[in-house]
Amino acid sequence: MSIEEPTDWAPSSGPVVVVAACQVELAVGRPADNAEAVEEAVREAAALGAQLVVVPELATSGYVFESVAEARSLAEPLDGDTVTRWTALARDLGLVVVGGLAELAGDELFNVSVIVDASGLRAAYRKVHLWDAEPDFFAAGEARPPVVDTAVGRVSTVVCYDLEFPEWTRLPGLDDADVLAVPTNWPAEPSRMSPTPAEVVKAQSTAMVNRMAVVCADRCGTERGVSWLGGSAVIGADGRLLAGPSAMAVPAVHVAEVDLGLSRDKRTGPRNHPLHDRRPHLYS
Amino acid sequence: MSIEEPTDWAPSSGPVVVVAACQVELAVGRPADNAEAVEEAVREAAALGAQLVVVPELATSGYVFESVAEARSLAEPLDGDTVTRWTALARDLGLVVVGGLAELAGDELFNVSVIVDASGLRAAYRKVHLWDAEPDFFAAGEARPPVVDTAVGRVSTVVCYDLEFPEWTRLPGLDDADVLAVPTNWPAEPSRMSPTPAEVVKAQSTAMVNRMAVVCADRCGTERGVSWLGGSAVIGADGRLLAGPSAMAVPAVHVAEVDLGLSRDKRTGPRNHPLHDRRPHLYS
Repeated sequence: MSIEEPTDWAPSSGPVVVVAACQVELAVGRPADNAEAVEEAVREAAALGAQLVVVPELATSGYVFESVAEARSLAEPLDGDTVTRWTALARDLGLVVVGGLAELAGDELFNVSVIVDASGLRAAYRKVHLWDAEPDFFAAGEARPPVVDTAVGRVSTVVCYDLEFPEWTRLPGLDDADVLAVPTNWPAEPSRMSPTPAEVVKAQSTAMVNRMAVVCADRCGTERGVSWLGGSAVIGADGRLLAGPSAMAVPAVHVAEVDLGLSRDKRTGPRNHPLHDRRPHLYS
Repeated sequence: MSIEEPTDWAPSSGPVVVVAACQVELAVGRPADNAEAVEEAVREAAALGAQLVVVPELATSGYVFESVAEARSLAEPLDGDTVTRWTALARDLGLVVVGGLAELAGDELFNVSVIVDASGLRAAYRKVHLWDAEPDFFAAGEARPPVVDTAVGRVSTVVCYDLEFPEWTRLPGLDDADVLAVPTNWPAEPSRMSPTPAEVVKAQSTAMVNRMAVVCADRCGTERGVSWLGGSAVIGADGRLLAGPSAMAVPAVHVAEVDLGLSRDKRTGPRNHPLHDRRPHLYS
């Protein structure tokens, strides 16, 4: 009848996987240079033991497009150079890559995150919630975040502004994702929240309320007058900052061990579980 | 076609209200002492200019009940001593009080938060998501969080563990609440997250994704072996910690000016609004 926890209760632990969030400086309109910068970061992550590596949103195209024609010229199909190169990296280095690119699909462009392993493209997710001028360039996705069984656990992905809709990130939680990989391009607000940026606070809460690790890979540097936050972080399923964010928005590879046991045994106390305790019939 | 914000864009500001989160040390089974401690905190808040004052969950009964009989003996109807006293305080001091009590309703007990002003009881909310042993004592509420038009803005309330269900706190956001008042009794985990406790991070995210100020009033001290976090905080609609939490779990009255303009003009950029950008047809 007491709220004290039985001393024999504790959340499960393990397996542990090594996860990297790559914070990269990119430039719109220079896809070859961007691809090289991303590959360098992935190789650095691998050298640090990473088994799952997340890179930013629109990692090869850049973000601040000047025209639809420019955006289109920087987009590519899902069997194009970027996925081909990331597949080769995944195979060479024995890891899973999640990252963003501009997808050209017929006449439409999508802001996509792909999950790639040694076998190739495992899933492509089209950003559903578009920020600012993005609707001028991209069509919005309509499909639920995928959850892919990989060698390093069940991996899901959304893109940047999607993270601000807890109804949306709840879906991979309910679909038993271990890790949510979030390629982002977070503009640095003039009034950055300190010590933890607002965007990262939202990611921590997403992790906690779903008991699901969250990995955000952001950009740094400046592109056509827009500065990027550099808020890349690896966040445990209990909301803790395991690696990142950087105090300064500089290139970085943040690597941490992530305990998937916390995602798989979601209990937060002897009688509580954040998904089983939901009362969805009351939520509308 | 650029993501740069037009220089003439900025969120609206004002009106500003002064809000207090009262962190109080209480003891189960001593309702008269607890009522006195709460009244002292409310008077201190008023002296600091507060117009809206939030006090903890189960502020008069205490929390760690030893038996159903004990819980029942500490419960009271909504026209009982606690609401009567808070109404008198609201009238004397010209403010709105939100706080928790154990409601006796026929044969059932509910863990309730009440919104009280000079006119008396404006709303009573019964906690919907029960933590740990609470189902041994309390029936779960079934009703949506109320949103009450008061002299200090549109005030809503949920209780403690309710805050961990973003689908639930979304409802007052959609119902145009300016401020969500959250009476809590947060047990201090042995592995408290630093510098911002996990519970407060969730409250900050709740504020940001709904653009709604959030005020958490927590306990401090120890009751029957349970220590309380002392995570009381006043959080702006932009997620910023305006007052609190305390570094140590000691009695405190955290007071801050809260800009309701951020709640009422929810735009987060020239083309973005966190509620209008939702795509609810995709969320199930």
